[in-house]
Amino acid sequence: MQLFTPDLQRWLDLAGIFVFAISGALLAVRKNFDVIGIAVLAFATGLGGGIFRDLVIGAVPPAAFRDLGYFLTPLLTSVLVIFLHPQVERINRAVQIFDAAGLGFFCVVGTIKAHEYGLGSFAAAALGVATAAGGGVVRDVLANEVPLLLRWDREIYAVPAMVGAGSVALLLHYDAFGDLTMALCVLLAFGLRLAALHYGWRAPRAWHRRSATAEGDGGRER
Amino acid sequence: MQLFTPDLQRWLDLAGIFVFAISGALLAVRKNFDVIGIAVLAFATGLGGGIFRDLVIGAVPPAAFRDLGYFLTPLLTSVLVIFLHPQVERINRAVQIFDAAGLGFFCVVGTIKAHEYGLGSFAAAALGVATAAGGGVVRDVLANEVPLLLRWDREIYAVPAMVGAGSVALLLHYDAFGDLTMALCVLLAFGLRLAALHYGWRAPRAWHRRSATAEGDGGRER
Amino acid sequence: MQLFTPDLQRWLDLAGIFVFAISGALLAVRKNFDVIGIAVLAFATGLGGGIFRDLVIGAVPPAAFRDLGYFLTPLLTSVLVIFLHPQVERINRAVQIFDAAGLGFFCVVGTIKAHEYGLGSFAAAALGVATAAGGGVVRDVLANEVPLLLRWDREIYAVPAMVGAGSVALLLHYDAFGDLTMALCVLLAFGLRLAALHYGWRAPRAWHRRSATAEGDGGRER
Repeated sequence: MQLFTPDLQRWLDLAGIFVFAISGALLAVRKNFDVIGIAVLAFATGLGGGIFRDLVIGAVPPAAFRDLGYFLTPLLTSVLVIFLHPQVERINRAVQIFDAAGLGFFCVVGTIKAHEYGLGSFAAAALGVATAAGGGVVRDVLANEVPLLLRWDREIYAVPAMVGAGSVALLLHYDAFGDLTMALCVLLAFGLRLAALHYGWRAPRAWHRRSATAEGDGGRER
Repeated sequence: MQLFTPDLQRWLDLAGIFVFAISGALLAVRKNFDVIGIAVLAFATGLGGGIFRDLVIGAVPPAAFRDLGYFLTPLLTSVLVIFLHPQVERINRAVQIFDAAGLGFFCVVGTIKAHEYGLGSFAAAALGVATAAGGGVVRDVLANEVPLLLRWDREIYAVPAMVGAGSVALLLHYDAFGDLTMALCVLLAFGLRLAALHYGWRAPRAWHRRSATAEGDGGRER
Repeated sequence: MQLFTPDLQRWLDLAGIFVFAISGALLAVRKNFDVIGIAVLAFATGLGGGIFRDLVIGAVPPAAFRDLGYFLTPLLTSVLVIFLHPQVERINRAVQIFDAAGLGFFCVVGTIKAHEYGLGSFAAAALGVATAAGGGVVRDVLANEVPLLLRWDREIYAVPAMVGAGSVALLLHYDAFGDLTMALCVLLAFGLRLAALHYGWRAPRAWHRRSATAEGDGGRER
């Protein structure tokens, strides 16, 4: 099954890797890493989620090591950010919108690929979320930061991916998938992420925790 | 070969994942992460060690992605901790005892599974230890903490797992395994960990290091 | 294809693991970890790069779990460093030279192994670099430090590996490999790393970044 034509899908794939790689390269610039560090974070962020998914489902070598485009995209992204990072920072809003699009696209194709390799609905959806959000976790771990995904003071990132991947898993389970329904799942995750950014939606913390922080706890946090 | 009946083994497996997931979810609450962060750490701690073992021995997709119970256990654990974390913290002693049981159980089943996939005695025992202790390392790395496993100021955790996994490897090597001897290995690791907790056993540091720290070094440590 | 006789290659392999494991064990001593932490970092640094490569190309179980020598080398290194770390620190210069030799050797054998498993030139070279530099990244992530590989204030480490791995990939592509050319690739990476250490070569940072740091930025850096 194909969400889109193979050609279109590949271009969307590369576009998603591109925007993820930008977020990795920009973090490396902010952390004052050298050009090697910028390239490493661009690769890890752009390809990390997909490599994890492919290792888990046994699709080795992962797609990232078989298609030259997957390799050149983070490389070119690094070069771009190395020379133009002030300009890229300035269009950060646009980058976030593309990142939301990448999130929507990757949670859907990740779920589909895991399903094609025989995983059940829940496992496929979980891997879809890992495909979309995993690169960012690898990026933050390498940069020695608490992953944004885990922090309460950021707009929700995993929830849109979960909704998108979960919808795909449901559609696959009921044999109701098709080009249109799949595209709707991408748009659903994309739209939710945009809305979260626009309205500042955050996930709640543990029960009883809200009052505690008002009193200034979080001492173990950096 | 089976340590216990498949049904009993599965329940022990899920119980082990449950207590490991609790330790992940509680750390997330202490670090003030949101509910997504709590769930991510519960999954990573409960399933991380087993996923690593399965990737290394080539058992893909890992068990965690094939059995729905493996998926639902950390999910339910997260919900439990989100609403009842003060109560769970209060029975922390009980949690530690269950965690010790999980340690004993996982180091044994991890070694057996690796052996079944054809690994040698040393490699199988090493993977048994990784199964038991790996989830905690993933938890601490994701939470941006120095892994407890590496710290000198904590009761030994890896040593009981090494003794348990090593005993299993020896028994397998001499064809002397069976339900009884295997259960004894679980109890051995479990008992050692409990004794370590009770008597405050710690692993030594490098030679000449004790005096050095008395003079207040460790400046690079956080 | 063989770079050297199998026997010689295995000894070089073990020598490389030995020097990488030393760097892991020494970091653990400096961070005041206990003997378990020292052994864990020795294993992770010595074997991490090769395990990652083998998982990606589907060579499971990884070599590190099949050859007892790969297992005993980091173990013996740990024991050595635990008792003799002041002496090992004192010959740090010699350790760095051996580490450079390990870097040269691993980037070449990593590229060759990936090529043998059917990867393209770029992917094989990338895995060669990951084999050589991956262990150090795992070491720093586990020790909760910013990976040295990413930092601008260290002599280049990845670049010599890239040059070595890239040369191998080129030679393989043009069917021009052989014992002599391969040995030259090892020497090339080795020599570049030694020169980088001797002359203090560093990789540049992002454009416009030099002046910024002169004004004392890098506030987000630790």
